[in-house]
Amino acid sequence: MKKIAICAPSTPITPGIAERVTAIAAGFPGAELHFHPQCFAEDGHFAGDDEARLAALLECANDPGMDAVWFAKGGYGANRIAAQAVADMAEEAAGKVFLGYSDTGFLLGALYRAGIGRPVHGPMPVDIRRDGGEAAVRRSLAFLCGEGQDADLALAQRPGVAFNLMTLAMICGTELMPDLSGHVVMVEEVAEHLYAVDRLFFHVTQHLSGIAGLRLGRISDVPENDRPFGAEPEEIARYWCARSGIPYLGSADIGHDSANKIVPFGLATGAARS
Amino acid sequence: MKKIAICAPSTPITPGIAERVTAIAAGFPGAELHFHPQCFAEDGHFAGDDEARLAALLECANDPGMDAVWFAKGGYGANRIAAQAVADMAEEAAGKVFLGYSDTGFLLGALYRAGIGRPVHGPMPVDIRRDGGEAAVRRSLAFLCGEGQDADLALAQRPGVAFNLMTLAMICGTELMPDLSGHVVMVEEVAEHLYAVDRLFFHVTQHLSGIAGLRLGRISDVPENDRPFGAEPEEIARYWCARSGIPYLGSADIGHDSANKIVPFGLATGAARS
Repeated sequence: MKKIAICAPSTPITPGIAERVTAIAAGFPGAELHFHPQCFAEDGHFAGDDEARLAALLECANDPGMDAVWFAKGGYGANRIAAQAVADMAEEAAGKVFLGYSDTGFLLGALYRAGIGRPVHGPMPVDIRRDGGEAAVRRSLAFLCGEGQDADLALAQRPGVAFNLMTLAMICGTELMPDLSGHVVMVEEVAEHLYAVDRLFFHVTQHLSGIAGLRLGRISDVPENDRPFGAEPEEIARYWCARSGIPYLGSADIGHDSANKIVPFGLATGAARS
Repeated sequence: MKKIAICAPSTPITPGIAERVTAIAAGFPGAELHFHPQCFAEDGHFAGDDEARLAALLECANDPGMDAVWFAKGGYGANRIAAQAVADMAEEAAGKVFLGYSDTGFLLGALYRAGIGRPVHGPMPVDIRRDGGEAAVRRSLAFLCGEGQDADLALAQRPGVAFNLMTLAMICGTELMPDLSGHVVMVEEVAEHLYAVDRLFFHVTQHLSGIAGLRLGRISDVPENDRPFGAEPEEIARYWCARSGIPYLGSADIGHDSANKIVPFGLATGAARS
């Protein structure tokens, strides 16, 4: 039995989302979900103020009775508490999986930098709202139950990480930035103009010298602009990789959608962390 | 007589804009405008491809017959040519004012880093389209003619710079980033959600340790979000300054509007550059 603590370090979910995800989890006898009440808190933009979100995250991470921490939703806000959260994590956090993506990538990055637990990019409870969201939620539940540890984009030979492009850009050069030397870095983006994607690639490729290479996830829901940008996302990625001497390693099956795959940070389970 | 070369390192203007600005410049007998034909070029998002924009910028900057380079418009694209432009600038560029803001801040930053010429934040020809845009264009023309060198936000005691917040965030940690130690850094933003402004402040304040302080320009045209953010721009700026130990020095009269003031980079003219 895997006990999974769920909290919301950025923005809240509704009790209805928790109910739908709990119903799906009933099909996983190996999983027991514990939604922290902070998941439903509201304070302006956030799922409770910084103190409330930090406290809930630490309760989940430091609870010796829990095996994993699943982030309920992204949005924005994890960066405000990530450094303090990592600083206050106890030994009980060390053995846990931390699973999420999008804005919660601030925490995945900070945990990876600190060497705490196992940060994993993958679907969150909020994804149940998407077309095909059940499959996304099942994918994460299966991973959390230990079925499919080596599935998807885990890399046996080279350590990998996956980030939302904007989130990674905002992490670069800050106290949350892990050392990604030798890593395969996968990025995806949603709801940004292509000129903004180009600008983000300028920024991140300048900060990622020394990585093993870059893989491009989906760049989805690009808003209409007053004129076409003139290059597709893959051209943009290839251009900036070439300019900065980073190998472009092709596409990655990640994105803000139901097909978003699991990417354990580091090497695949069973391989030694380099 | 000040000869002013105008080019578009990011996106194009129309000939109509050039005509309106030329008509206003007729009231400045000390100014002679030279619109480079590249101002009107189009290539997807950009005012011509990277090679065309770079070539026009270098023609303007390296022309011994010109006294200043005025950027026609921002948008997006100056970052793609800034490093090469600075590398290829000749001695003739050293004595020139370079005037613009918004996306052209990538060039102002790169020039300031390289110690080439006098980068200045201020209105551009495209601002003629705004309500009150004539006053904005006149403000820059007066500055370019040498009337009002010490006006506005020039600082006699401490060197200053002014940037669009997103532009500065994208410059941080890259090959374009100047050393801003001891500087008063002014930032403004347009058309970004307040959560994105908060996220940008997280990023830039982590990169700006050692500055003399931060001043907040206008954060305008904030899009409606599905819920209120819960903090005003000044609270956001104060919060991140306090977290990172940067003195918050109050407001700055800059922004994406007609009131946008002139900010010469460095110390006010006449004072020694530190």
